Amino acid sequence: MNDAPPSAETAAVEAVRAQVSALHAELTRNGLVVWTGGNISGRVPGTDLFVIKPSGVDYDDLAPENMIVCTLDGAVVPGSPGSDRAPSSDTAAHAYVYRNMPEVGGVVHTHSTYATAWAARAEPIPCVITAMADEFGGDIPVGPFAIIGDDSIGRGIVATLSGHRSRAVLMQNHGVFTIGRDARDAVKAAVMTEDVARTVHIARQGGPLVPIPQDAIDALFHRYQNVYGQNPEGALS
Amino acid sequence: MNDAPPSAETAAVEAVRAQVSALHAELTRNGLVVWTGGNISGRVPGTDLFVIKPSGVDYDDLAPENMIVCTLDGAVVPGSPGSDRAPSSDTAAHAYVYRNMPEVGGVVHTHSTYATAWAARAEPIPCVITAMADEFGGDIPVGPFAIIGDDSIGRGIVATLSGHRSRAVLMQNHGVFTIGRDARDAVKAAVMTEDVARTVHIARQGGPLVPIPQDAIDALFHRYQNVYGQNPEGALS
Amino acid sequence: MNDAPPSAETAAVEAVRAQVSALHAELTRNGLVVWTGGNISGRVPGTDLFVIKPSGVDYDDLAPENMIVCTLDGAVVPGSPGSDRAPSSDTAAHAYVYRNMPEVGGVVHTHSTYATAWAARAEPIPCVITAMADEFGGDIPVGPFAIIGDDSIGRGIVATLSGHRSRAVLMQNHGVFTIGRDARDAVKAAVMTEDVARTVHIARQGGPLVPIPQDAIDALFHRYQNVYGQNPEGALS
Amino acid sequence: MNDAPPSAETAAVEAVRAQVSALHAELTRNGLVVWTGGNISGRVPGTDLFVIKPSGVDYDDLAPENMIVCTLDGAVVPGSPGSDRAPSSDTAAHAYVYRNMPEVGGVVHTHSTYATAWAARAEPIPCVITAMADEFGGDIPVGPFAIIGDDSIGRGIVATLSGHRSRAVLMQNHGVFTIGRDARDAVKAAVMTEDVARTVHIARQGGPLVPIPQDAIDALFHRYQNVYGQNPEGALS
Repeated sequence: MNDAPPSAETAAVEAVRAQVSALHAELTRNGLVVWTGGNISGRVPGTDLFVIKPSGVDYDDLAPENMIVCTLDGAVVPGSPGSDRAPSSDTAAHAYVYRNMPEVGGVVHTHSTYATAWAARAEPIPCVITAMADEFGGDIPVGPFAIIGDDSIGRGIVATLSGHRSRAVLMQNHGVFTIGRDARDAVKAAVMTEDVARTVHIARQGGPLVPIPQDAIDALFHRYQNVYGQNPEGALS
Repeated sequence: MNDAPPSAETAAVEAVRAQVSALHAELTRNGLVVWTGGNISGRVPGTDLFVIKPSGVDYDDLAPENMIVCTLDGAVVPGSPGSDRAPSSDTAAHAYVYRNMPEVGGVVHTHSTYATAWAARAEPIPCVITAMADEFGGDIPVGPFAIIGDDSIGRGIVATLSGHRSRAVLMQNHGVFTIGRDARDAVKAAVMTEDVARTVHIARQGGPLVPIPQDAIDALFHRYQNVYGQNPEGALS
Repeated sequence: MNDAPPSAETAAVEAVRAQVSALHAELTRNGLVVWTGGNISGRVPGTDLFVIKPSGVDYDDLAPENMIVCTLDGAVVPGSPGSDRAPSSDTAAHAYVYRNMPEVGGVVHTHSTYATAWAARAEPIPCVITAMADEFGGDIPVGPFAIIGDDSIGRGIVATLSGHRSRAVLMQNHGVFTIGRDARDAVKAAVMTEDVARTVHIARQGGPLVPIPQDAIDALFHRYQNVYGQNPEGALS
Repeated sequence: MNDAPPSAETAAVEAVRAQVSALHAELTRNGLVVWTGGNISGRVPGTDLFVIKPSGVDYDDLAPENMIVCTLDGAVVPGSPGSDRAPSSDTAAHAYVYRNMPEVGGVVHTHSTYATAWAARAEPIPCVITAMADEFGGDIPVGPFAIIGDDSIGRGIVATLSGHRSRAVLMQNHGVFTIGRDARDAVKAAVMTEDVARTVHIARQGGPLVPIPQDAIDALFHRYQNVYGQNPEGALS
């Protein structure tokens, strides 16, 4: 028990474990994942820890108890509940984002169908619908091709999203990573990314798209980040 | 409590709150919305009020108690249940329709995938299937590009649908608004709009479409508005 | 009560009412219908009656009690349960099929998306997958454009399917009608029609299709009609 | 009872009957099958038996009791529970695989939409997304056109997959067969096959695909077979 996190952090850790576990149901409900694919993590506020899904476990079997607590270098905190399991194979990428983007409180990764289709062409999703201007403030960009196993995926995410309005990046030939103020906000971004990836794909199959003027995109993004919802909190960046 | 609606109206308001709340389940069941997107409103018969969804609230959390009562200028009725929340960010557009189309008792707005795809090309949906002739009496038209924040969306809806057989308008680069005799009728129009938007999109991907002669469209529309169902009530316009 | 069907028929009628009511859940489960669209009927064995869905009633509200009993000329049997409601607006087409194809015990009509997309182009679905050879013995044919309101839809179905291996016909600009030994068999045909309509559409979007040799189609159809399942009963025609 | 398997095998048989029965729910949950289509089998460890689904039975009615035990030549073991029913019409193909690929412990067959669409063009699925490199180590290959009724389907599967990294084969004009260490592993391969078949189809509809370099495919496949999940066991072949 000497290695367990101190009691002061425990409540915060437990809250994030519960939230991150529950949010995974949104990935299946929205059809963003199959089998054991995809993963969500959340930073534990006031600590240098984050919570992430275990590797290769069925969605039906996810529970707060088997979420895994990691330090910001991606190492499992020994002795914490769930620490007997391997964390998501994408843990290093999540950790890199948390280390390098302190404003980020949640990260989501999926291979959702339409977003991944754009990624397989290394093509940004053009901003031709107002919901996309609201949510992403413009195009959803493409990040580099990067092989799992070192920091190259994390570096690609951070390099693409730093200073960008979009909370989503299409990693070439791979899938989508989204960031948010917290895990729920990142999940929302993942849901909206697939929704606009699908709508814009289908729109373009039918003929030429009508662009939205840049000043209208700017106005929509500004309003949405400051007005929409019950507790508008402003954009991430 | 002085600001609460008078007792005579209370029962009518409560009935519409219950109906509008329940109808939102049809949007998710039919796959027309994601996350907190989309909204339904219903006019309160015999009053100058309508009921609308709150802004940015999860579909699972919608209930009669948190539906919001507004006057026809789009202002929340102070002191009424739910009045501590912000109404849908599309409330001004709904209000504009109710003020200017007295025959309308319900309004629905979604970003449903296929309808929005036609909207991103500013292209009307051609009437090539009989279900579309039945329900919409011809093409589903496109309304102007309009920015949220003033009456321009409402004006675009009313200008496009006034005197038109269609109860649905594709707002350019945005999504679909539908109207109906009541909220349920507008929801039906939203469901049918996405259904025909999808079918006609897929049909055209496979090759040239066969048009329906105008006199057949007219005959189908007339019959459906007067004969179909248990209690035919005639078309809106 | 004098107009009620005689007691000898009552049990048979009730059995078909229960079956036809329950089968409608397969239409929603398989995504073949939206709102109140689509309908199933079943012939009552040993009688000149059939049972059909009421017009414009929610799928959630369908029950054996509100199924409607009709004579083979499409008239509601007065005094029978459900006879206070209007039958499906497609009742005349079902009745025409039962009058003219005595081997048919069930009829299904839907506007399922992909089948209707082929119908909007008046294009038969080519037999390029073995499941289609098994089930339909070749292409799924197109029937004429016909307006609801007289026998022209029924005539088009019968003219297209009489002597044809296929149990499904794509009615131009309209949707699909399927027939079967009984209502369940016709529902299976409706499910399989949409499945092959979707698969072949998607296949052709990706490039040229590989045809199946006619002798292989014949062999597959013959085997499937005589061998597959627990109680093979042979093809309809 | 003389023909029943000896008591030593009974427990092993029962375990596989339970697993194979339960796994069929994954086929419907993932949208890989319609009506009674598709089938799963699992080899009984330490025996010359395998367990397979009965022919033409509703998915809702599948249960451990009606799974069918077969010998490796595809004959039903007489006297065993379920032996009064006909096994899947694809039993001969499953048996051929078990006889000729001793490392295979599970076989799955579906007509899932997108995989079958590639099969109708006799076109391999190119490896352009990293999940496909992980799971299949390269392209998903096409097997020959083969008619049901003798060993030609089984021979086509074995000839295509022997020595191949892929655990899935697209049988021309037919559908997909997958193999695995056990039935669950083969089901995972079936789920992933449809997922990549859909994603790559949609990707290519939008424009040219970006290839993944062969050395990156090799690195991804090697890592995934040895590192991913809680109990990595290595690839099949």
